[in-house]
This record gives sequence, C-alpha cells and structure tokens, in this order.
Amino acid sequence: MTLEAIRYRSGSLQILNQLLLPHKTAYDEIRSVQDAYEAIKSMKVRGAPAIAIVGCLSLAVELRAGAGGDDPVTFIRESLCHLTSARPTAVNMGRAARELMEFAENESMEKNSEQLRESVIAWIEDMLERDVNDNKKIGNYGAQHILSGVPRDSVTILTHCNTGSLATAGYGTALGVVRSLHALSRLKRVYCTETRPYNQGSRLTAYEAVAEGIPATLITDSMAALTMREMDITAVVVGADRVVANGDTANKVGTYQLAIAAKHHGIPFYVAAPSTSCDLSLESGRDIIIEVRPPEELTSINGIPIAAPGIEVWNPAFDVTPHQLITGGIITELGVFLPSELQAALTGRLTAL
Amino acid sequence: MTLEAIRYRSGSLQILNQLLLPHKTAYDEIRSVQDAYEAIKSMKVRGAPAIAIVGCLSLAVELRAGAGGDDPVTFIRESLCHLTSARPTAVNMGRAARELMEFAENESMEKNSEQLRESVIAWIEDMLERDVNDNKKIGNYGAQHILSGVPRDSVTILTHCNTGSLATAGYGTALGVVRSLHALSRLKRVYCTETRPYNQGSRLTAYEAVAEGIPATLITDSMAALTMREMDITAVVVGADRVVANGDTANKVGTYQLAIAAKHHGIPFYVAAPSTSCDLSLESGRDIIIEVRPPEELTSINGIPIAAPGIEVWNPAFDVTPHQLITGGIITELGVFLPSELQAALTGRLTAL
Repeated sequence: MTLEAIRYRSGSLQILNQLLLPHKTAYDEIRSVQDAYEAIKSMKVRGAPAIAIVGCLSLAVELRAGAGGDDPVTFIRESLCHLTSARPTAVNMGRAARELMEFAENESMEKNSEQLRESVIAWIEDMLERDVNDNKKIGNYGAQHILSGVPRDSVTILTHCNTGSLATAGYGTALGVVRSLHALSRLKRVYCTETRPYNQGSRLTAYEAVAEGIPATLITDSMAALTMREMDITAVVVGADRVVANGDTANKVGTYQLAIAAKHHGIPFYVAAPSTSCDLSLESGRDIIIEVRPPEELTSINGIPIAAPGIEVWNPAFDVTPHQLITGGIITELGVFLPSELQAALTGRLTAL
Repeated sequence: MTLEAIRYRSGSLQILNQLLLPHKTAYDEIRSVQDAYEAIKSMKVRGAPAIAIVGCLSLAVELRAGAGGDDPVTFIRESLCHLTSARPTAVNMGRAARELMEFAENESMEKNSEQLRESVIAWIEDMLERDVNDNKKIGNYGAQHILSGVPRDSVTILTHCNTGSLATAGYGTALGVVRSLHALSRLKRVYCTETRPYNQGSRLTAYEAVAEGIPATLITDSMAALTMREMDITAVVVGADRVVANGDTANKVGTYQLAIAAKHHGIPFYVAAPSTSCDLSLESGRDIIIEVRPPEELTSINGIPIAAPGIEVWNPAFDVTPHQLITGGIITELGVFLPSELQAALTGRLTAL
C-alpha cells in the first residue's frame, strides 16, 4: 500500500492533515484556492513539491466549478499570486505558477472561457501525473545506481528529514529511492534521523515507513556518524530544497553534517531531486540565503517548554552541502549525474544514467 | 555566581534536583545512603563525577550521625556496595568505593570506631575539595591551551551534553574550561548542542549558562557542522565518560560526529576529563561496550509521544571517538596532553602543560 497524502478526483481534493500526524490520520477537504492557501500557510501540507501540486490542484477544483466566469485568466493570475505568497521560499510553487500562467495566456488567445478552463485543468492534472512519474523515475534510477555499486543482496540506507509521499505529489524523492529498493526486495533497512527541531523524521518519515511496512529504524541526528560506523550503511540519500548550477545543495539543516560524516566513512552521498528543484540561475551555494526560524522550535515541543528559560537560540532551517561532498551523485528523473555534469544534463547537453 | 548543585556542610547534604530542571530550582535533602541511592537511580543527580561525590557525601552524613556503631567498616562496605549498584556503568563511583574501602580498612587497624568515622569523613571531605580543585585546574589548563593557539581577543567554543557544576563536584570539566575562559573575559560565546535524546544541553548546560551570565547559544545537534563553518568556532571541548590508554574516548552519543566535523573544518577538538575518568586498563576504545537505552527516550518527551507509533528505535547512550580525532588534546588536572602522551603522563613518566 502506498500512503496517499493527496487525494484528487476531477472536481474534488483532499489532503492528509500533517499537523495531526503521527497521532491522527485525517483528510481535510480543499474546496478553494483560499483553503489551499491556508493549508500551506499553516503547514497542513509541506514539502516544496507538495505545496506546488496542492496549490495548483485547488485552482483546478475551482475552475471545474466554473470560477473566473468570463475572465478566467484574471482569476488564474490572482489565484496563483495568492498561492505563491503562502510560503514564498518554496521554489516549486513559483515555478509552477510562471509556467501555468504562460500556458493560460497562450491558450486564451485561441479559446473561449469554457475551453480555457478545460485546458488549464488538463495541464494541472498532467502536472500531478508527471510529478508522480518523475518521482518514480528518481526512485528507480537511484535504486539502480546504488545497487550497481554493491555486490551484496541487500542494502542499508540512511536518510534525513521527510522526502516521501508527504512532501511530494506522491512516492517521494529520497524516500522514493528507498521505496524502489524495498519494492525490489533489496532494502535491508533504512535509518531515519529524527530531524530536529521540527522532527520530520520521527513524525513523518517514520509514519510512512510504518504505514507501508518498510523496515526502518529511528535515530537521533547525533547518532548518524555512529550508525554509519556500526550499521554497514551502503549509501546516504537525502532530498533537496534547491540544487544550484555547480551542484551545491540547500536542504534541511543537518544535511551538511551527514555529508561530512559520510565522506569520513567512505559512504556514497546522494541528493535526490526532480529537475524542477534545480536552479541553474545561481552559480554556487554561496548565493543561497540561510532562512533562520523562530527559537520556539527548539525551546518547546507541542507548546511545552523543554529548554532553560532565557537561553539564546540559533535556528537555521537549512544548510548548504558543497558539491564536493555529494560523492554518490544527484538523482533526477533524467538520470543520476555527478555535480559537475548537472548543468549539461539539465540543458540537454548530456544524457546519462 | 557559581551554580551550586551540591550543598554540603558537615552532617548535612542537599542536592539540586535535576529532574525538575530547568523549570524549577529545588534542593532535596539527602539524609542517608539510601536517599543518595534513590537520587542517583532516579537521575536527580547525574554525571559520573557527581554521582561518586554525592554517594560518598551521603556516607559521610550517616557516619557523622554515628552510623555503623561498633563496626563502621562493615557499614561502610555495605553502603559503598549499594551505592555502586545504583548506576553500575558510572566508573567514578566504583573507583571511589575501592579507594575509600582500602583507606577505611587500613585505618581500622589502628583506630577505634569513633576515630575511624572521623578519618573516613575527612577523606570524603578531602575528595570533594580535591574534585572541585581538579576541575578548576582542568578549566585553567584548558583555557590557557586554547588561548595559546589564537592571537585574537576572544574565543568561541562549541560544547556537547552537560559537563558543568551539575555533572561534577562543582565547576565542571568541559564547561569548566568555558567558565575559566569567561572568568578571563576571553569568551565571546559558547554554542551548546541540545544533546538529544535526553536534552542535557538544552535543559542543563543552558540552565547553567543563563544562571551565570555566560553568553551562550543553543543549537540542535544537527546544526553543529554549520555552526563550525559560519560562527568562527575556535575549539570544540567535550567531557568524557571514559578515556582509555590510547586516548580513545567514550562520551555522550554525538561526540564522534562532532569530532569528525571539527576535523573537516580544521578546528581543534579537546576532551576535558579528570585523571579519575581515565582507564588505562583498556588499551583501545574497541573494548568499550556501547550501552543501549530504552526507545522511549526518542519517542516521547515528558511522557508525551512525539514519534510515529510502531517505529523501531536504536538508542545508544554514548559513542567512542578515536584518538586520531582528538586533535586539540586531552585536558586533565595534570595538564593538557596529546592522546599519545596520556599514558606516560598519568603514570608519572611525563609532565607537561
């Protein structure tokens, strides 16, 4: 069984409310763009790819009900603008909005309102299908690449944060690779880090693993190096918030530390990300600004204080892993590339596994 | 002001109840060996040096009240045996028990019961004073060594777990080095890791820092490498549960990962420990068995579940850092030594700063 985080049928959208996980599994109905905006803002749905797809699907739901009347282009533009503002750092929503807007404007030159609505809905439904298919490709390319390097029957993976069905349109990126290995009966076990301070690992990745019967063990972030030494880790696979032109990768804080520990142990380190998470407009990771989040994420949990009152806190949400530490490769829906090959691969100048 | 975790006057002992920290500062009266046993077992007091000193002081309190009657040696032996069983892995209590028992047996050959009680009480009170003085020496040697390596006015330290007044007879080991730097007005800031899963950093180290006005910033364990890169860390200083003959060091889980990250950034990595934490009977860290603790430490906090139900957990309490990664040195009350010099230094064949 694959965990369903997004339930979509033409005209109807439900999302798994991640604020209630792992204690309660409940789906919220998304009837409008405003519903989606609020779900994204409040983090009922999170993960850059999932945000984009839920945002666009909410627009499809409204269009199916006839929203926009005689001027759907204006309605689409305003909706996308609103959706993009909910979590402005999530790059995928912005990219989807630009592409969809360009498509809608072109279509509007030849089609009437009703036809335009239909073709925009079709574009969004294609996007959902394409995203899931891209993730499955990522999973398969990643699994093949990892297995090609080991003669053994089964592999042990270490991953960080949540990059599964709960963070994407479905299947997942890094966790998609884990899913593919499991589907091939070649996964011995996945170790998932707790991922402080927001605990995406213990709450979400662990939830997905338990739900699907994937053999998984939870560790604290501080145990990763020891796990690499003691537990025969075959590869470390993480997701990405953004991969820039030279392969430097911004991802959930802690990724950089894992990459250093992996290098120390001679364990290949992989980044799994769709090409839509690659941003060739930035040359190196130095250009990425580190988002700093509120201290309360460290000093309390579920509203209960857990740290000494008055202590200062530094809470950067992500870090940048230099491309030199990405020794396994960058796994995309186009294949697995070395950081140095990425730019050529994405611009069509290189095809590879 | 120095935080007082152990309040002792002849015949009277109080300890700061660490189970209530950081939310409540309350002292518990320890009237007997049994009181101390229960306080150690329930972790009202923790940290190997603090366990030994509280155990022995509780014995002094009973002896002052005349315990043991005509046969104090038997009472002392039974008491020490009971105290050692409370947390059998804490090496310092066992060592103190052996030394004190040997002393008491020798004294008993020449002295009557009353005289024996007095000399044992004096031995224990000396132990308290010696432990605090040793920690101050560790603090000063460590501070001098760190400062000798940097031309700058002030230094920034990263530390792990709690190694302060709350873990020792007073002052602290690694946190003692931080205290000494602060007393010299040469400490810019100390970064303390949260130290999952038991949160000794956010609960205890942060509490000590706030109480004493030491400039301190709390980070998650996963942020340590990023902090090293971004915050101009001068040195990493940690404590030790046990240092063996070749310098390999068992300490709170996460230490090994910090040492790898420090090496990657070219930052000196120090272990601060009294010679009583050194165990020359073991040749290398391979001989140290890793204690695995209950899963609940990761899956709940203050009794509230925080992880997906059903997930498997691995919860090793400490890890072993190979001596090659201890690039700054091992700070003891005898001076600062390279791992390769430790054995000679402790057996009197080497004197050094």
